[in-house]
Amino acid sequence: MDLTIKNGTVVTASEIMAADIGVKDGKIAAIAARIDGGAETIDAAGKYVFPAGVEIHTHLDGILHGMRTVDDWYVSSVGAAFGGTATIVDFPMPAKDQSLQGIVDEFTGRATGKSIADFAFTPIINRFTEDIYQEIPVLIDNGIPSFKLFMYYDWTVPDYELARLMDTITSHGGIVSVHCENAGTIDYLADKAMAAGHTGPQWHAPTRPLSTEIEASSRVIHVAEELNASVLIVHISAGPVVDLIARARARGVNVYGEAMPHYLCLDDSVYDRPGYEGMKGVCTPPLRPRENQKALWAGLRSGALSTIGCDHCAFPYKDKIRLFETRGKRIDMIPHGAPGIETRIPLLFSEGVNRGRISVTKFVEVSATNPAKLVGLYPQKGTLAIGSDADIMILDPEKEVTITQEGLHSNTDFTPYEGWQVKGYPVTTISRGTVLVRDCQLEAEAGHGQFLKRKRFEVF
Amino acid sequence: MDLTIKNGTVVTASEIMAADIGVKDGKIAAIAARIDGGAETIDAAGKYVFPAGVEIHTHLDGILHGMRTVDDWYVSSVGAAFGGTATIVDFPMPAKDQSLQGIVDEFTGRATGKSIADFAFTPIINRFTEDIYQEIPVLIDNGIPSFKLFMYYDWTVPDYELARLMDTITSHGGIVSVHCENAGTIDYLADKAMAAGHTGPQWHAPTRPLSTEIEASSRVIHVAEELNASVLIVHISAGPVVDLIARARARGVNVYGEAMPHYLCLDDSVYDRPGYEGMKGVCTPPLRPRENQKALWAGLRSGALSTIGCDHCAFPYKDKIRLFETRGKRIDMIPHGAPGIETRIPLLFSEGVNRGRISVTKFVEVSATNPAKLVGLYPQKGTLAIGSDADIMILDPEKEVTITQEGLHSNTDFTPYEGWQVKGYPVTTISRGTVLVRDCQLEAEAGHGQFLKRKRFEVF
Amino acid sequence: MDLTIKNGTVVTASEIMAADIGVKDGKIAAIAARIDGGAETIDAAGKYVFPAGVEIHTHLDGILHGMRTVDDWYVSSVGAAFGGTATIVDFPMPAKDQSLQGIVDEFTGRATGKSIADFAFTPIINRFTEDIYQEIPVLIDNGIPSFKLFMYYDWTVPDYELARLMDTITSHGGIVSVHCENAGTIDYLADKAMAAGHTGPQWHAPTRPLSTEIEASSRVIHVAEELNASVLIVHISAGPVVDLIARARARGVNVYGEAMPHYLCLDDSVYDRPGYEGMKGVCTPPLRPRENQKALWAGLRSGALSTIGCDHCAFPYKDKIRLFETRGKRIDMIPHGAPGIETRIPLLFSEGVNRGRISVTKFVEVSATNPAKLVGLYPQKGTLAIGSDADIMILDPEKEVTITQEGLHSNTDFTPYEGWQVKGYPVTTISRGTVLVRDCQLEAEAGHGQFLKRKRFEVF
Amino acid sequence: MDLTIKNGTVVTASEIMAADIGVKDGKIAAIAARIDGGAETIDAAGKYVFPAGVEIHTHLDGILHGMRTVDDWYVSSVGAAFGGTATIVDFPMPAKDQSLQGIVDEFTGRATGKSIADFAFTPIINRFTEDIYQEIPVLIDNGIPSFKLFMYYDWTVPDYELARLMDTITSHGGIVSVHCENAGTIDYLADKAMAAGHTGPQWHAPTRPLSTEIEASSRVIHVAEELNASVLIVHISAGPVVDLIARARARGVNVYGEAMPHYLCLDDSVYDRPGYEGMKGVCTPPLRPRENQKALWAGLRSGALSTIGCDHCAFPYKDKIRLFETRGKRIDMIPHGAPGIETRIPLLFSEGVNRGRISVTKFVEVSATNPAKLVGLYPQKGTLAIGSDADIMILDPEKEVTITQEGLHSNTDFTPYEGWQVKGYPVTTISRGTVLVRDCQLEAEAGHGQFLKRKRFEVF
Repeated sequence: MDLTIKNGTVVTASEIMAADIGVKDGKIAAIAARIDGGAETIDAAGKYVFPAGVEIHTHLDGILHGMRTVDDWYVSSVGAAFGGTATIVDFPMPAKDQSLQGIVDEFTGRATGKSIADFAFTPIINRFTEDIYQEIPVLIDNGIPSFKLFMYYDWTVPDYELARLMDTITSHGGIVSVHCENAGTIDYLADKAMAAGHTGPQWHAPTRPLSTEIEASSRVIHVAEELNASVLIVHISAGPVVDLIARARARGVNVYGEAMPHYLCLDDSVYDRPGYEGMKGVCTPPLRPRENQKALWAGLRSGALSTIGCDHCAFPYKDKIRLFETRGKRIDMIPHGAPGIETRIPLLFSEGVNRGRISVTKFVEVSATNPAKLVGLYPQKGTLAIGSDADIMILDPEKEVTITQEGLHSNTDFTPYEGWQVKGYPVTTISRGTVLVRDCQLEAEAGHGQFLKRKRFEVF
Repeated sequence: MDLTIKNGTVVTASEIMAADIGVKDGKIAAIAARIDGGAETIDAAGKYVFPAGVEIHTHLDGILHGMRTVDDWYVSSVGAAFGGTATIVDFPMPAKDQSLQGIVDEFTGRATGKSIADFAFTPIINRFTEDIYQEIPVLIDNGIPSFKLFMYYDWTVPDYELARLMDTITSHGGIVSVHCENAGTIDYLADKAMAAGHTGPQWHAPTRPLSTEIEASSRVIHVAEELNASVLIVHISAGPVVDLIARARARGVNVYGEAMPHYLCLDDSVYDRPGYEGMKGVCTPPLRPRENQKALWAGLRSGALSTIGCDHCAFPYKDKIRLFETRGKRIDMIPHGAPGIETRIPLLFSEGVNRGRISVTKFVEVSATNPAKLVGLYPQKGTLAIGSDADIMILDPEKEVTITQEGLHSNTDFTPYEGWQVKGYPVTTISRGTVLVRDCQLEAEAGHGQFLKRKRFEVF
Repeated sequence: MDLTIKNGTVVTASEIMAADIGVKDGKIAAIAARIDGGAETIDAAGKYVFPAGVEIHTHLDGILHGMRTVDDWYVSSVGAAFGGTATIVDFPMPAKDQSLQGIVDEFTGRATGKSIADFAFTPIINRFTEDIYQEIPVLIDNGIPSFKLFMYYDWTVPDYELARLMDTITSHGGIVSVHCENAGTIDYLADKAMAAGHTGPQWHAPTRPLSTEIEASSRVIHVAEELNASVLIVHISAGPVVDLIARARARGVNVYGEAMPHYLCLDDSVYDRPGYEGMKGVCTPPLRPRENQKALWAGLRSGALSTIGCDHCAFPYKDKIRLFETRGKRIDMIPHGAPGIETRIPLLFSEGVNRGRISVTKFVEVSATNPAKLVGLYPQKGTLAIGSDADIMILDPEKEVTITQEGLHSNTDFTPYEGWQVKGYPVTTISRGTVLVRDCQLEAEAGHGQFLKRKRFEVF
Repeated sequence: MDLTIKNGTVVTASEIMAADIGVKDGKIAAIAARIDGGAETIDAAGKYVFPAGVEIHTHLDGILHGMRTVDDWYVSSVGAAFGGTATIVDFPMPAKDQSLQGIVDEFTGRATGKSIADFAFTPIINRFTEDIYQEIPVLIDNGIPSFKLFMYYDWTVPDYELARLMDTITSHGGIVSVHCENAGTIDYLADKAMAAGHTGPQWHAPTRPLSTEIEASSRVIHVAEELNASVLIVHISAGPVVDLIARARARGVNVYGEAMPHYLCLDDSVYDRPGYEGMKGVCTPPLRPRENQKALWAGLRSGALSTIGCDHCAFPYKDKIRLFETRGKRIDMIPHGAPGIETRIPLLFSEGVNRGRISVTKFVEVSATNPAKLVGLYPQKGTLAIGSDADIMILDPEKEVTITQEGLHSNTDFTPYEGWQVKGYPVTTISRGTVLVRDCQLEAEAGHGQFLKRKRFEVF
């Protein structure tokens, strides 16, 4: 063996076992009661040995709301690795007339040589022209089986294209992620609020009420059911959507749901903070009343929700303020988004596993295994199986950390979790047998990460 | 290694991998890309290597409806082993004034020396006296954490005791299985049918309508939710119950559901067969209209249903007829039950995996991993993890078999699946490293099986 | 005409019209733009002319919780008349071995010569013997088509009898009212609370949680649906039950729901009052968290709920305290009930119509028309139609009243609405053309009221 | 009195009474046990005296699908009167750049001098420009409080405008009717069907599946709930929509539902007829599988559905064929619509009242009272109340009729009900005291009908 991880508690989506892991040629080669004699040995006694996290919801180094997010692939992937994540699948958005392959290539260029995490892309479809439909089967053949649609923003998918895209993508072996908010109602409520002089972050949530997320999710589920399409509803904030998904899944619809740490941990009281402080919580959908958290955790535990993403979108607080002030102080001109790639796994472990809301196997399932499945990366990524990439995260369940912006690696100037105490923290992250972070120290060099060509999506 | 299984496709509840398995001292000792040099080697090339099945719903060698089921533990466990199952957890019912420990001991005596499968017991609680409540914590401490309640039959649990038992058992670390049918409505409908001269198997389903199962399941879920109790609703036949469970689970209720092959594969048209033929399908709940099957399969796939049992209850057809005729030809005097321990896994694989209704990992999850979890046997049983018992089933996905009573091993005189074609069949079954059945030939000796002392139940 | 009511706004369940009403021989003889020349004339200018209220949920002059309610038929009916009600249908409970006809006769005796309101009885079925089943069709033939069942108290209906009674009563043209609470869970929670030393009114609501009412209501609906039976779920306090009923009705189940002023106006904060004050709100089901009120009002408005009763149960506060203290201070030994017959209509008008929650036609429908239909009294009672009894209530929408125990006519020593301000109050109540109360002054003599023989129930 | 109707059974939405009715100056002046001495007397012995029908869903003398419907206002209103209807509220659609007032004026011109029924208009909003928003409050002030939106066809309302229009109209005292189908999914399915060579009427229903109606209805309900808007979902064909509306109403949403005879009486087997026969049933939404009928009838009875319309759209069968053949044989080029104004009430009475599915008061409520309320015409129209217009229909419950195209008065060449037997038929129809049809003979002269200026909508 090239590398042996000994004496840890090895956990997969279904197993918890005292075992050693042997790595050879960057792959998991053996899991056994005892493996001796590797070239290198890491002692994981007293620690969990998990599959490294797979993050499938980010906006890295791209332009949104007219400004470029400030974390490039090196910074982002370093943060990811400190947070236990070794694979990133990002959402690049094509420029006008740019092909999907074109934007994937462009972003591949941005990531290559920089990222220490392996990477891939779920391109955003932001126009609905024939060339896009022609390209989809080709992309899937080329190992890009996942696509993203929005029911909000200027590239809101029309109902016809929603049906056609879901059907086209699924029938060729792909899967669609959808941002579900009823844009029409939100825009109307925002206009009404503006007309009434209501501006500032405290109006963010009231103009994007729960009903708009529920309605859009319901719409997507109906269309998916009719067309037998596969769909992932991303960043669910509304408890009632969990019920919708649970029921749809129970009757055979191929719908999956994504949770996020900010909806699990934060609530809409953030918007009541003085001054512009509430802007730190301005994301879409907005943070919700506290009772939704219970439903989201129960959704994760029960399997109604399948995965957890972070929606890393590195807008500095000072830029949020600046853009708001220079764009007419419109509610909808506060850039939507917050950093989160480094805190996803620590929060999920501390708030989830430590507080007894989810089991340690469920933790693996939603942070690594299912995200990998949802983008066609499983079993290469997301698990500790013979033949899988040796992407491993060692987590010390006793390690206590206070989250601060200073302690994280993003270029932004805030974290929504400033001052949060977490217990249980990733200490070592390994990618294809190469140690990226060891005992909380960076070892990887820029550019370790590789572009991942993926398989077709399979329903699970 | 004592035993090496080579070249197979190893499948667990979360993994599918080309790997060898090494067994030492009756335990799984290694899973690796290649393991050489075991004392004994089995070549599994072209075959699946699964955890052996765990069966948690049987009525073996016990008295129900006033007659003793005709398969003793040897016969039953041999059938189980041919069908890929190596662990059986049975439902013994105490005699009048007999303690729960007493009936467990008595049945342990019946199984010991006979069973080739490892075994345990989920005692039926058929009286609601203080001694029972005193005994529950003791039994759980002694490794018997699962109990069974009925909402039908003479030992129907009163509502007060339902609440008290669910609370008592859960709070001590146990779990309750409940047979959910509204006894009052069924008895009234049966009396009304009898008064109208309606008798015979064709009246079995109409007097136990879907609503009675739905109502009782709903009741149990409400009580479980109120008391935060853990409950398994057994033998679900009604599609709408899947929806009830999915929703309850999604809001955090610790409720689990059990499917069964006869509800997944058969329907109520069985009762329209001429003469007494319909009696072969007389079980409770009754077989249902065909549209329920779709809901049950979707329930298994989505995780709304967690496990699959067989309800093996070996009443010969001739005795069903005899007892019906000698007991006033009452509908409710047809002994309820049918054999099924040997056909559970072949049917689940052929109708489920082969027809694309469930994945091969889901097959493992519901036939082995989750049943083991639901009775406190995981990870000793139900998976292929380092340190787990080497209970292994090798299944040949190409093997085609026509199910006939003659080809099975039960002492009954019928199978409800006579003439069914299945593709994919267990060929070798191993228990703690000992081969029970090899290449479809029995090798085990009576008495290989051991009584299993179990852990407390943990929600999952 | 014997009596003409002129210049008012006449309102029925479907009409609002400026019209005069002519009464002859105790019946409504004409409704017209103008009617001149009656023997007696009442000027209703500026006032509403409504059908007098029909009250179908009381416990008058009977023994419950081991003590007799303190309002006899004279006192109760005078209170009713001041509150705009001219018909009372009471729930008498048979003594041991007493027949249903026997208790009806006994209570008819108690009311005759005393009541100023017309009266009838919905006997409680508190045993489930063959004689009761024999009597039911006879009673229905004799004009007693309504019956009451309880799913709580010592006379809890077993599931078998629930089905049999619902089927028997419906098939003979009757209707069943059911008190829906899961007795088993409540008793268990009460025992558990007592064992933990939890006593006093603040434990009333926690030991009778929403789930117990929802579960029992769901059970009744399932049974009614299966048997196509007609059922009225009484005193609904739980918002989710409104949804259950709405859905059941929408799919064709003959289920009706009853609201009550205390659940519409009060909430469970009553139980937090110091000392024993909370006992004034001890009724079953308990008062609920405030959000249920919105659902109940919406239920009335939408037609999910059909009627409003008062559950008048005249236990003085001092006796509630006394019985609690002398019976071991058990939670379940606080007599359940409060007075309400006089305040039902003023509260419904003031909180409902005046606050815009229900229309004035809906007010008539739920306070008079539908209650009459639900006990087989329509169109004799409950409306202003040609040929109907001239039971008329004139309400002054501008009259403001502060509710106080002193201002009401009950023998109890409290009202749960002490100090409530209402706007809109009945000023004149007429029964069969005879003025009972005129301009808030009593005119009737004891014994005006007559026993009402009723028709079979018809679904509506 | 000018006119007295004697000896009939007078029925309103809430009453059934043996009474005479007196009419003076075109208004109901008296309802009494006996009215003697009118200028003219009609004997209604043995017959029902109902409010004349109010029809609020027609497409008369307008251009749809590129052709003008063939029944002008004279023909249509004569058919209506023979069918017991005396008021018609039509949906006119503005031409390009035409104002709403403009199209109302134009259609008023078409109806004036021709229609024998009183009439009004619910203009279709088919563009979403500022002038329309400016016009809405003016129209409502002018007595035009109802508007129509489509979620299908070229004038599909965008989500933003759906929200804005619902809010604008409701806040000014109006109400919106919405045609609910998900246009995007339907268009995609139609394109897919066409691409597969699927054409002809048998593809009408499969390309407009239930899910598209359910989804669009759900969307409208969510938006209405968020904005507290008042909305009527028209022509409901899908059983599950009844459940959606029942639940929404029960939680306080001001949503109403409209049933139609063709969805209550016909099913999608029509499309299986040979040749082009299926085109006779091509309407939108399409006819549905039979099980939906039960839900629709239950919806009417329970109040989940509030009204019944006919969607009279007089396209001759021969033109349906012609247009289909000359427009590329596209499924979506079969003109959608069928005649129905004359058969609405006979079918509702015969299939509803006679078959015991609804009561005779519910018949009045949904055919006259509620339609009048839903367009601001109540109490002028839709009831028999003092002061209301004397719009009266006398129906002979014993009269049996076989429906044939020949026997009806439309200019179309088919009726979807050819050969249907009905029992119970309107014999006399009166408008403002003037007999339009007497004993099945036309008496009215063209132009009797008047334009109706209406009140604001009030929730009920």
